[in-house]
Amino acid sequence: MVETNGKKILQLSGCEAVYVAREYLLRYITGFVAENGFAVVDKNGTTLYTDKRYIEAAEKLCQGTDVTPVLFKQGDAIERLSAYQSVGISFNQTSASEYCRLQEAGIKLVNIDKQLSEAMTIKSEYELSCIAKACEIAEDAFLALLPEIKEGMKESEVAALLEYKMRNLGAQGLAFDTIVAFGAHAAVPHHETGETRLKFGDEVLIDFGCRVDGYCSDITRTFLFGDDGKHEEFKKAYAAVLTAHTMIKEQLISGMTGIEADAIARNYLKEQGYGELFTHSLGHGIGLNVHEYPSVSPRGEAKLVDGMVFSDEPGVYKAGEYGIRIEDTVTLKDGKVQSFMSKTDRNLIIL
Amino acid sequence: MVETNGKKILQLSGCEAVYVAREYLLRYITGFVAENGFAVVDKNGTTLYTDKRYIEAAEKLCQGTDVTPVLFKQGDAIERLSAYQSVGISFNQTSASEYCRLQEAGIKLVNIDKQLSEAMTIKSEYELSCIAKACEIAEDAFLALLPEIKEGMKESEVAALLEYKMRNLGAQGLAFDTIVAFGAHAAVPHHETGETRLKFGDEVLIDFGCRVDGYCSDITRTFLFGDDGKHEEFKKAYAAVLTAHTMIKEQLISGMTGIEADAIARNYLKEQGYGELFTHSLGHGIGLNVHEYPSVSPRGEAKLVDGMVFSDEPGVYKAGEYGIRIEDTVTLKDGKVQSFMSKTDRNLIIL
Repeated sequence: MVETNGKKILQLSGCEAVYVAREYLLRYITGFVAENGFAVVDKNGTTLYTDKRYIEAAEKLCQGTDVTPVLFKQGDAIERLSAYQSVGISFNQTSASEYCRLQEAGIKLVNIDKQLSEAMTIKSEYELSCIAKACEIAEDAFLALLPEIKEGMKESEVAALLEYKMRNLGAQGLAFDTIVAFGAHAAVPHHETGETRLKFGDEVLIDFGCRVDGYCSDITRTFLFGDDGKHEEFKKAYAAVLTAHTMIKEQLISGMTGIEADAIARNYLKEQGYGELFTHSLGHGIGLNVHEYPSVSPRGEAKLVDGMVFSDEPGVYKAGEYGIRIEDTVTLKDGKVQSFMSKTDRNLIIL
Repeated sequence: MVETNGKKILQLSGCEAVYVAREYLLRYITGFVAENGFAVVDKNGTTLYTDKRYIEAAEKLCQGTDVTPVLFKQGDAIERLSAYQSVGISFNQTSASEYCRLQEAGIKLVNIDKQLSEAMTIKSEYELSCIAKACEIAEDAFLALLPEIKEGMKESEVAALLEYKMRNLGAQGLAFDTIVAFGAHAAVPHHETGETRLKFGDEVLIDFGCRVDGYCSDITRTFLFGDDGKHEEFKKAYAAVLTAHTMIKEQLISGMTGIEADAIARNYLKEQGYGELFTHSLGHGIGLNVHEYPSVSPRGEAKLVDGMVFSDEPGVYKAGEYGIRIEDTVTLKDGKVQSFMSKTDRNLIIL
């Protein structure tokens, strides 16, 4: 059975009702995914409004839950919401058009973004199992990819092959556009995967992830396609990034803020002379969105606690030369970091 | 060189400035794609604000255009926009959070959704060439897929293989989640591709598309995986859908409304006894979004004119039995329909 979260969010909102329409929020509240629909939660339960394309599937899925699917008619939202003293909505996930439309109808809207992101950041067993599966698929696909990487392949071909493998292993989609960077392209953290062909001695950076029931995995591996003897500086930096990555797993404990967690890796890389080259945050929350609350960065004031899922991804980038990032999706359990990645080596792979 | 549209949109808006932040609008206005950034257009040109991850690439791409990339600092948008008497934004593509933030800063916001969608619906030669390429890749991938479809494959495996082929042919991503439906699953227009395995005699419906420089293709083909002699009703319906699909190509002319265009197919299918079974619109606009303005449906009051791109996709769905949809991405040129699909057969394929 799917998980529903209407009751929890209603309670946290302090409102008489909660209204969601964005797809991933609809999934979180009702367990159901529809391109077109919305949900209203009040003290009597959750009503899922959708169109005739989805209604049959919704009825099947919602059996035994507190969600009642009904056929949507034009104007339903306004009519229904007008009955409440206060309606909680996500201001971040509602368009200005809809906001104005609801306001003009006299509906009293309350921003519940904070409550939503705080609730969604603590994952249930069901959510953890979806993320674990998405991570396992990503790792299995990567392991199957390695022996198939050949000289002359394009970045886009490697990305396509990896995505194909994830899909065949059960992924329902990508978590984000796969980044494959050869050679100095790896120095660009958000490199756009292109037509460059792989040469002997190139470094390869791959940042990828997939989705299971909407939940994301996020993983980065950096390796060498043969060793042409010109990678001394790269190897030294790799060892430093790996140490920073591993220190997070060993030293980060529940109750630390994102700032404190980030500082573990950042201070170490600074000591090693890479302070200026670690140009992004240590990590970000992962769930139904691949980038979500909490922030594990110098701006991450919130405490990291058990049940949160985030990335551990220190990196070092030297423009025009090399880039290294080692990233796992991890969670906090019993106060400590537990990685979802158990199959792929973090030690430098030389193909 | 990329195409920029800031000047055109500013003029249409009637505002002193235009502000966009959503990725696809940023692409339309500046030609550049960044996960994080925004653009401001005024009479002096377009300024693209982005962060240090993107700035180098932006400078390279914007050379010779009216777009000036600059490094983004916190608060830049408010400061810059405060200088104008009126600022045009897309209410549909701005969050309520951002709308409130801008409003509270005293910025006078004007909704330019209508101007944006009307401008974006008429495609330039550059845009048409991107869509043509995305359509060509989709067709080539489909033709390469057909001989590889085997008994026992899962819907998800067929989808993965098709997506892999599009990616290797140069697609930069999917236009939407590929729909692969075997047997009676085809009766569900938005079937969720699953684990069902292909059997001899199954019908197969595949609805798919990819992206080239952000622009989408959208195509559906329905065929038989072997003929077990039980498809008389299906074949009759297929012939009716194909006739409706072809009538659009022959009879739709520039200047008709979406309602009139839709009626060509709808009236014919009704005459043939399928009125109740054609459960969706004839078509929708296609561009940087796979569903955009104009609507080719009983609610499509706007005129269809040269340069618009939309789908021609009549369908007939008999619950629990079969579903048929034949879809091309088409444009209007010199007053007439011109399909982007020229390689794949619409006559019933029996594998």
